[in-house]
Amino acid sequence: MHIEKKYISNPAEFLLKNNVLAEIAFNEIEDSIISMKSVDQEIFIINNSTKNGNGVVPIKEKCYQILEEKYVWYREKPLDYLSEKMGGPIDVYKMFGSNPYFNVGVEFETGNISSAHRSMNKLLLGLHNKELHLAILLMPIRSLSYYLTDRVSNYEEIEPYMPLVSDVPFILIGFDAEGFSPDVPFLAKGNDGMSTRAKHKWKDNFL
Amino acid sequence: MHIEKKYISNPAEFLLKNNVLAEIAFNEIEDSIISMKSVDQEIFIINNSTKNGNGVVPIKEKCYQILEEKYVWYREKPLDYLSEKMGGPIDVYKMFGSNPYFNVGVEFETGNISSAHRSMNKLLLGLHNKELHLAILLMPIRSLSYYLTDRVSNYEEIEPYMPLVSDVPFILIGFDAEGFSPDVPFLAKGNDGMSTRAKHKWKDNFL
Repeated sequence: MHIEKKYISNPAEFLLKNNVLAEIAFNEIEDSIISMKSVDQEIFIINNSTKNGNGVVPIKEKCYQILEEKYVWYREKPLDYLSEKMGGPIDVYKMFGSNPYFNVGVEFETGNISSAHRSMNKLLLGLHNKELHLAILLMPIRSLSYYLTDRVSNYEEIEPYMPLVSDVPFILIGFDAEGFSPDVPFLAKGNDGMSTRAKHKWKDNFL
Repeated sequence: MHIEKKYISNPAEFLLKNNVLAEIAFNEIEDSIISMKSVDQEIFIINNSTKNGNGVVPIKEKCYQILEEKYVWYREKPLDYLSEKMGGPIDVYKMFGSNPYFNVGVEFETGNISSAHRSMNKLLLGLHNKELHLAILLMPIRSLSYYLTDRVSNYEEIEPYMPLVSDVPFILIGFDAEGFSPDVPFLAKGNDGMSTRAKHKWKDNFL
């Protein structure tokens, strides 16, 4: 998998150039995307034999697994200002450095476009409350989403709303596969095929 | 029906106090809510015999009908920066005054909480692009939503996100019924029971 499109707000651009912790965080996210490859392949190949044929959750889970196991990110960080009912926790989260911490929140969007707006606003609220110092939203680009779960949102759908995040350190990433073939297995839909490995949940470690 | 809760950002508060067009717009919205009454009653009574028993669309349609017919608002104003696929038009819209116009956009939310985030962001983008000068989001309060369509979002769910709109002229309104009784008819769900009256669509008049 690779990053095909990205939006980096000016404040985020400034951080990437001037804050080594922000640079490390971005590199870890980028590596978690690049490291997703098909079995025994050097690239990620998606089954393109039918529209909406593949699930998107296996991609998210693989990405998060790399962040957790290779880079020690944590899952499900609750925001102080939001209860579980009001937006839920941040998907994956890492505190870089110390005193002060540089906190990065990531959401990998697997829902429809409305859900993407909620993810975006959750990240924005984290930035507003200073619980996050950099926020990153991951989505497939439109041409890839054609082969993923029906109605999953894509980079191009949320991109027109980027003026709303231009004043805060926000990055939108659109990822894409390198290969398309009817001969590779479909990615499982729903939660089928998920491994039962223990997630690195924030609450198990810090609450 | 009446306004039970409201959030008015500081820029919106300033407009309401210093711009007569903003004040008129708000009064028209408020009247469209207050004017919703049960048949032959001076109040709005909702059937409370069962959770999720009533549809929410008839409330929206009644509110919009008052705005259209009494106050000449228009439906479905497209934003210049968004195609139909990317967020769709603003629900109801009115240009007040002239040279310059004072444009007000309203969304009456009838979807789930994710949908409410999308509506909020659509209004915010309209403000950002100067196509709107005041934005208003209407939702039931939580205790009323208990008797409305399952998972319809409510005022209290989106309220924690108001810090994201504090710098722009944004108003969030939470409405409530005055009466609760098992003896009044349920409000129809889906689009059942909608009148077939012609909507005042923006495109039919201005495009």
